[in-house]
Amino acid sequence: MKEEKNDWQKSSEFAEYCELLKFESIGVNRQNLRSCAACATWLKKWLEKIGAKAELVTEAFSPPILLAEIEGSLDYPTVLFYGHYDVQPPDPLDEWLTPAFSPTVKDERVYARGAQDDKGQLFAFLCGVREFLEERDRSNRPTIKIVLEGQEESGSEALAVLAPKMRSRLAADVMLVCDSSAAAGLRPAIEAGLRGINHFTVKLTAASRDLHSGEYGGIAPNAAEGMARLISSLHAPDGSIAVKGFCDGIESPSAEELNLAQLSAPTAEEYENDIGCEPCGGQWNKSIVMRNSFEPTIEINGIHSGYGAEGSKTVIPCEAIAKISTRLVPGQNPKAAFEAVKAHLEEHCPKGMKLEVSELTGLASGFRLPLNSPLFCLAEEVLREMDPRGAVYHWNGASIPIVSTLREISGAAPLLVGWGQSEDRIHSPNESFSFIQFAKAKEWAKRILKAL
Amino acid sequence: MKEEKNDWQKSSEFAEYCELLKFESIGVNRQNLRSCAACATWLKKWLEKIGAKAELVTEAFSPPILLAEIEGSLDYPTVLFYGHYDVQPPDPLDEWLTPAFSPTVKDERVYARGAQDDKGQLFAFLCGVREFLEERDRSNRPTIKIVLEGQEESGSEALAVLAPKMRSRLAADVMLVCDSSAAAGLRPAIEAGLRGINHFTVKLTAASRDLHSGEYGGIAPNAAEGMARLISSLHAPDGSIAVKGFCDGIESPSAEELNLAQLSAPTAEEYENDIGCEPCGGQWNKSIVMRNSFEPTIEINGIHSGYGAEGSKTVIPCEAIAKISTRLVPGQNPKAAFEAVKAHLEEHCPKGMKLEVSELTGLASGFRLPLNSPLFCLAEEVLREMDPRGAVYHWNGASIPIVSTLREISGAAPLLVGWGQSEDRIHSPNESFSFIQFAKAKEWAKRILKAL
Repeated sequence: MKEEKNDWQKSSEFAEYCELLKFESIGVNRQNLRSCAACATWLKKWLEKIGAKAELVTEAFSPPILLAEIEGSLDYPTVLFYGHYDVQPPDPLDEWLTPAFSPTVKDERVYARGAQDDKGQLFAFLCGVREFLEERDRSNRPTIKIVLEGQEESGSEALAVLAPKMRSRLAADVMLVCDSSAAAGLRPAIEAGLRGINHFTVKLTAASRDLHSGEYGGIAPNAAEGMARLISSLHAPDGSIAVKGFCDGIESPSAEELNLAQLSAPTAEEYENDIGCEPCGGQWNKSIVMRNSFEPTIEINGIHSGYGAEGSKTVIPCEAIAKISTRLVPGQNPKAAFEAVKAHLEEHCPKGMKLEVSELTGLASGFRLPLNSPLFCLAEEVLREMDPRGAVYHWNGASIPIVSTLREISGAAPLLVGWGQSEDRIHSPNESFSFIQFAKAKEWAKRILKAL
Repeated sequence: MKEEKNDWQKSSEFAEYCELLKFESIGVNRQNLRSCAACATWLKKWLEKIGAKAELVTEAFSPPILLAEIEGSLDYPTVLFYGHYDVQPPDPLDEWLTPAFSPTVKDERVYARGAQDDKGQLFAFLCGVREFLEERDRSNRPTIKIVLEGQEESGSEALAVLAPKMRSRLAADVMLVCDSSAAAGLRPAIEAGLRGINHFTVKLTAASRDLHSGEYGGIAPNAAEGMARLISSLHAPDGSIAVKGFCDGIESPSAEELNLAQLSAPTAEEYENDIGCEPCGGQWNKSIVMRNSFEPTIEINGIHSGYGAEGSKTVIPCEAIAKISTRLVPGQNPKAAFEAVKAHLEEHCPKGMKLEVSELTGLASGFRLPLNSPLFCLAEEVLREMDPRGAVYHWNGASIPIVSTLREISGAAPLLVGWGQSEDRIHSPNESFSFIQFAKAKEWAKRILKAL
């Protein structure tokens, strides 16, 4: 067994995986555009080698979108596979034990930014596609369309603009996405819903410059404190959202959804072991499953104002920024939800300060898929073959905004099965993906393509 | 007149002033220790050239303290002059129009970090001392003791430790400090009081790592939001301090103090023109003079948590820090005031988070000096000779913590007269000091030494 895994580390597949992880494809950073383009070109060549027709589509100043197609028979449903080759920024860099873009193996896990999310999962899936193609000729397989983009972590702007212009090229019956997590112990999980998302930047300006906190203390308003007050106003002390109109129209989960979600959800103890503190986010009197899967959130992704280094600097900061994201559930209109937050911020703008809300991206609604559909039944069957425990259903608290868009434009039924685990630490320093998870994702790709 | 000023720019005095400003003597930064030492050495040599015995005293890892003495006659009172050669960090660097450590002249102002605070003021004063020494021999002048330190901006730690060991070397009758501001229009001002100060760092820790705001949103507590709530709790919505026990024992100003303070205080309109926003800091129902001169403050000097760059990063920050300073007034015990804030922070520590309060420095009490003392009467006379408008009294909202310490140890009566103006932008980018202000500080030094 040990032997076998060591063999994989020596394989060309593993070498390719590491090559892919070395590209610093941080889609949100302009200065990484070249790395993103190089990464997309590498993937294009790889797909051409396995027999796909592939093309890079570029919007000004955006990482290219890779469109590929492997022709199959019309007797099969058309499959659309979506993945993203961009990764989250690796900061804080000093918390990485090994360099973020030098994949390093330890205990049969590969450590690198993107090792899992989503370079690892998408590449494992594509390796499954490659093996599937070795077994099936054109007359004996579905047409496989592939869309890989480089802006998923920052709102999929280019693809969201281009997709509506490519309806026929994207048209499909089934959309496969491998960018989510399995349940605990790597038990297979089918995503039955995703939250939507908006993100934006809030800026407060008080004085025209940072001021001496003695000379002006008691006189000048303090932007750091103003931002603290403004942010605090977004939630009531019990953790519920205090923004008027934000929660309007929310659709409650059915009893069946709630029961099934409960089955795959970690317990409070499991969460506490995972995150290292009490899992007390969200509204205190609601269950963990409700708070993560069926309720929206307003999350402060960052706040910065004034001095932050060693020692002290006695200033009254004149400026403060906050980065905010909101997760949305079915029934919430993303635009209306954003406007509600914006109106709240304007109403609560501290005395003497100017407010600016900018960089709105996302505008993706949350969705939940109908249970008991033929596609879900088929997926359940395939996953039970892979794992006798069978699959659980999961209503993901995360968002893949472009999935909502692609679902509507392609007409395809989404099937989101991924192989992440919380120990992968996606979006955090020391992200990793295990050999076993890679193998599972690859096997899933082969099996579902055969079953369709 | 124009000619004359241009002459000063060509003088060796001006060249020396620029040399002094070039040292990057940021006392709070360890990596600037060498620059601080070079700056102190430069000042030592300069003082030796004008006839002082001078010595550098160094505590491990602290900028050196410069002790100098110019012997005079016992028939005169002994004078102790205090100044600081350290400067505030120059950040944000990109807001400087000219480099912070390359003094640049524009419209008869010198632009540089420290151009005023306190390198400019202390050097102008010392130039006055030099000219005074040219006119008076040893039998005909007071002994002048000089203490220049390199940590005033960050708490004067080394001097506070060393001063009690040097009682006889510091013993004096009058302590002169040139590190404060004149009133509007450069009308002379005597500091009749200073606020005390504490500063410290607050750190909140929630999860063991930054978390994905989708996967964990509604589950994990958010350190950025927690810090916002914690900071907001320090003040009531009306701007008053909400920390139990913090304001205990505060001594109200006398009617005479309040009236005199009112005379030199800028109006709300003047403040608004100066700072570029409504001067609405502090407790809303109190007057500007009360808020700045006779009331304490709790000021947020900085808050930092999570992502802050371009675009978005959908994380739940696991950590947040805040830099806090408090200004204290007579009657407040610095230690007790700090303990009150610490207890408040502990009591309000958000659910699921750990709180750490560290880096406490300052511990300086505020003081107010008795009006109508013989020293103040003499100073008033000298200042009326310099300016027919005469001097105003000012109860400074700022702090020079070491002045409290030196006052007690030297036994000297403090006389704080400085020549700053709000347009000097001390502690902010583009700090400057005008030729006229320099000349006033120099003239003041000469005249007060002659009068003593």
